[in-house]
Amino acid sequence: MKVTIWNEYRHEKANPKVASIYPEGMHTAIAHFLSNDAAIEARTATLDEPEHGLTDSVLEETDVLIWWGHMAHGEVSDAVVEKVKTRVLEGMGLIALHSAHYSKIFKALLGSTCSLKWRESTDKERLWNTMPSHPILRGIGEYFEIPQEEMYGEPFGIPTPDELLLISWFTGGEVFRSGATWQRGNGKIFYFRPGHETYPTYYQAEVQQIITNAVHWAKPTVRIPDDCPNSPALEPLPEDTDAATRPTIGHK
Amino acid sequence: MKVTIWNEYRHEKANPKVASIYPEGMHTAIAHFLSNDAAIEARTATLDEPEHGLTDSVLEETDVLIWWGHMAHGEVSDAVVEKVKTRVLEGMGLIALHSAHYSKIFKALLGSTCSLKWRESTDKERLWNTMPSHPILRGIGEYFEIPQEEMYGEPFGIPTPDELLLISWFTGGEVFRSGATWQRGNGKIFYFRPGHETYPTYYQAEVQQIITNAVHWAKPTVRIPDDCPNSPALEPLPEDTDAATRPTIGHK
Amino acid sequence: MKVTIWNEYRHEKANPKVASIYPEGMHTAIAHFLSNDAAIEARTATLDEPEHGLTDSVLEETDVLIWWGHMAHGEVSDAVVEKVKTRVLEGMGLIALHSAHYSKIFKALLGSTCSLKWRESTDKERLWNTMPSHPILRGIGEYFEIPQEEMYGEPFGIPTPDELLLISWFTGGEVFRSGATWQRGNGKIFYFRPGHETYPTYYQAEVQQIITNAVHWAKPTVRIPDDCPNSPALEPLPEDTDAATRPTIGHK
Amino acid sequence: MKVTIWNEYRHEKANPKVASIYPEGMHTAIAHFLSNDAAIEARTATLDEPEHGLTDSVLEETDVLIWWGHMAHGEVSDAVVEKVKTRVLEGMGLIALHSAHYSKIFKALLGSTCSLKWRESTDKERLWNTMPSHPILRGIGEYFEIPQEEMYGEPFGIPTPDELLLISWFTGGEVFRSGATWQRGNGKIFYFRPGHETYPTYYQAEVQQIITNAVHWAKPTVRIPDDCPNSPALEPLPEDTDAATRPTIGHK
Repeated sequence: MKVTIWNEYRHEKANPKVASIYPEGMHTAIAHFLSNDAAIEARTATLDEPEHGLTDSVLEETDVLIWWGHMAHGEVSDAVVEKVKTRVLEGMGLIALHSAHYSKIFKALLGSTCSLKWRESTDKERLWNTMPSHPILRGIGEYFEIPQEEMYGEPFGIPTPDELLLISWFTGGEVFRSGATWQRGNGKIFYFRPGHETYPTYYQAEVQQIITNAVHWAKPTVRIPDDCPNSPALEPLPEDTDAATRPTIGHK
Repeated sequence: MKVTIWNEYRHEKANPKVASIYPEGMHTAIAHFLSNDAAIEARTATLDEPEHGLTDSVLEETDVLIWWGHMAHGEVSDAVVEKVKTRVLEGMGLIALHSAHYSKIFKALLGSTCSLKWRESTDKERLWNTMPSHPILRGIGEYFEIPQEEMYGEPFGIPTPDELLLISWFTGGEVFRSGATWQRGNGKIFYFRPGHETYPTYYQAEVQQIITNAVHWAKPTVRIPDDCPNSPALEPLPEDTDAATRPTIGHK
Repeated sequence: MKVTIWNEYRHEKANPKVASIYPEGMHTAIAHFLSNDAAIEARTATLDEPEHGLTDSVLEETDVLIWWGHMAHGEVSDAVVEKVKTRVLEGMGLIALHSAHYSKIFKALLGSTCSLKWRESTDKERLWNTMPSHPILRGIGEYFEIPQEEMYGEPFGIPTPDELLLISWFTGGEVFRSGATWQRGNGKIFYFRPGHETYPTYYQAEVQQIITNAVHWAKPTVRIPDDCPNSPALEPLPEDTDAATRPTIGHK
Repeated sequence: MKVTIWNEYRHEKANPKVASIYPEGMHTAIAHFLSNDAAIEARTATLDEPEHGLTDSVLEETDVLIWWGHMAHGEVSDAVVEKVKTRVLEGMGLIALHSAHYSKIFKALLGSTCSLKWRESTDKERLWNTMPSHPILRGIGEYFEIPQEEMYGEPFGIPTPDELLLISWFTGGEVFRSGATWQRGNGKIFYFRPGHETYPTYYQAEVQQIITNAVHWAKPTVRIPDDCPNSPALEPLPEDTDAATRPTIGHK
């Protein structure tokens, strides 16, 4: 299974604190732990590469795409977003991490604001497992804690998830739907809240476990290109006396 | 309640058969029957008006927007689509009719291909009521028939509807999810399949009843502008010793 | 609109503390505030009345049934539960309050364990509004607080709600899906968490507002008795050469 | 993976036509094709065995239970239904075939009437694939046909499925949600319409493929016994000055 981890990779270059936590970037840290799974072949791509590292051949070969973005959502080209969207609808899996709630690709697939409350402070986050049978939560107990994380709070401007997997409790008094899935076309989408750049969240065992599980869950089952066919009848129809006057404009 | 019926209004001008059925356009026919409901104030807007007739003040005053488009989806300006989307997410209702499955606004809100099978021939359509308690189906029995309609067939490239209201049977052997609802943000969306331009579908009583019911159902309950606020804690937090080194970039 | 408030009415008689808060029982307190709404005609019924106060004629006349039970779920007769279930599936609304998560009727309609974590202590509950456009939340802001309540925690053993309206934050570190809706048959169901008998929760304005809103939301739109009919074909079928050998057992 | 196929096994003994199609019963025919899958160990159980063949040890060892019943739903003991329900909520998969829409176990898990229209005649059934990426539909094309089957028609009295996989078209003019999934507790449920006893439906390749796929899909991921624990706080709480007067009745 081929996984591409896409990262904006700007905070790590601009902020020494972030660089001290993720010296080679968050994408590299994520690729590193995913590579412990023999079934996964991980590669990375970043904003400042040509075509953001998401060339046609990279997308062609990607089974599951992981996305982290925050300060430069607007710099992601609409053409690349459109290609990624097409691939998800054909069947590619997508895992949106943390601030990717506001990425162009996540918003384009969900169709809503994806807005939320936020606070960078000293909150602890406790994530409650609301669907213990779900494969993304394999190995996760009733809850786990992240000692410090950015707070995200409700209301979260998302369509009702197909499955709600995790709800977070924050010290400061908020709650958040921190793990949720949607199907769009033939592709599976998982949003996973944790991962603020100033905390070592992606080194935490439960976070790594969930992302690894999610890669397996999001693996494509099919690849079906978009089509809107003019389809002949399968059963006898009355004679078509109007055919001559019928407009010939199709759906595309 | 203020309803704006938007119509591409091209088939009626280009095709004498369509013009003979809807001499003043489908939008006018729809506005006409909606106006029989004293609670509804109907106005129309069309593609070739400035800003497609959807100026800021029109959108500002619209509670529910009805959309019919087919041969010129690509001519609808992205800026207008973005404004309509914003209004739906704030709370405005949207009713997408027939070929509006492929309109920019419907696709932008649903996030998927919205593709389907189709055939213009001599099919009869029988629409089965799968949710008889739903207010959109008030007054509709177990099924109703449209003597001739374009066929739309599954698979329909939509996200799982919140509610599935109607499933169509076609003579030629296909089925279709012909009435379905989704919530996006604070706005309610209803897709209703019938209404091919070469048939007098919008003069049929059941079709008029369903569209009228849907207008009432889609009426806004709130209007909430998008917001992604930095929110102070509601409960005591540990001292913030890191504040000085924290990046100041917000979610916008 | 006729509303019946059903209460076990045991804690109030057995526990002086509860009696001091609700001297005439929680059902009476709820009926009292509902009666401020001119559209609502409220009556009550309790466990120790004949047929638990839910005779055929009472159920016949009830549009929305509110249920509070806790220490005596097992004493509710299965025959009454079956009648209530039938009425909900026909169209009657049901509002299950607090410990009614474990009532026979709620479990029979949802089909799952409805189990949860709980703690009677000094928790504050803050309920976050996750769907501000929903009519049940009309007049409710981003959140509201109940100074002291029993804690209910996830995982909550319910099927995925149709709509998730409220998520609670508790001082002790838990979260809970405190407001949720499901449709069963033609009836609407709302579960609302607050209302432990040792706290004056049903005197709080937001709680009263939500229950009143929910009564309006749950109002029946239809009443359709259960039926599983042998249905003649609507389209021509091939000749039935097997009719003589076909078994005659129907679905009932 | 251990699969138990439960069959009422009455039609086969009472009706020579059914016996001629399924001389050893439908359960044996289903077990036979499932046994072609090396990962599946299939056994059978029938109504007239002691405890209907569903003893504690059989249920204990069953990963996925397949159910076929029709003329004797009422003879299934409530105690056995309760045990099966408990096992599903703990994690066991359940596949309900054809007339099992009216089985006690299916109705207990879904909570609704599960009623439908029906007709035994000469209809052809064409099942349309509405979710081609779903693992239950692996290997199934856009549609498949069953030359003769009993008709089931909408409205089908089920809660909104989590996933709608198949919609049927019948010659006589009806449609039906023929493949659908629900999660209840930790268990996965799949309803699959085809399989009337007077037709050789379970010998058809697509039907066998779907049932085999569904067994894999429904395989348990966890086994979690029901629990409703009194849970100590994870965060500091204010002092509990009321503890002495607090009632001690728990949720069980």
